[in-house]
Amino acid sequence: MIIHNMMEDAVKDILEKQWGNLSISCYCSECKMDVLAMSLNRLKPHYIRNRAGMMYTKANLMTEQSRATILTAIVESSKVVSAHPCHR
Amino acid sequence: MIIHNMMEDAVKDILEKQWGNLSISCYCSECKMDVLAMSLNRLKPHYIRNRAGMMYTKANLMTEQSRATILTAIVESSKVVSAHPCHR
Repeated sequence: MIIHNMMEDAVKDILEKQWGNLSISCYCSECKMDVLAMSLNRLKPHYIRNRAGMMYTKANLMTEQSRATILTAIVESSKVVSAHPCHR
Repeated sequence: MIIHNMMEDAVKDILEKQWGNLSISCYCSECKMDVLAMSLNRLKPHYIRNRAGMMYTKANLMTEQSRATILTAIVESSKVVSAHPCHR
């Protein structure tokens, strides 16, 4: 069963672009993945199963409002990860 | 960046077990994926990035309450897909 959460792509995209600008105590890849997972848990998922749904959802997630909501989730999550880094 | 939404596994598991019991107008694989995607969009995601988080989250998603919440989302989604099947 092939489905995909388009919100993953949107958060990864913004996280990649903003990672260097975030005020975080550690910039390792594990902390980055923690910020990604925590941000996704704070945002409404947008699962789709076909290409038509993919284009429609992608357009919806590119609005200024959506990007602002996603960036807010990333900033909030980076604060938590920064205060409680979870290294193995 | 490897992360995973554990809710996907939980919904897939219950959907597989209950698929034959659902009252739905079409039992094709496309409708099944639509029910899966729609159910996931109704449920809070549980993204994790490591094995420890995986076991912890899996245990949380196996409770009676969680399974009831997931089944409710599946039943509601199957009603929508049943009324509006989206075949290509």
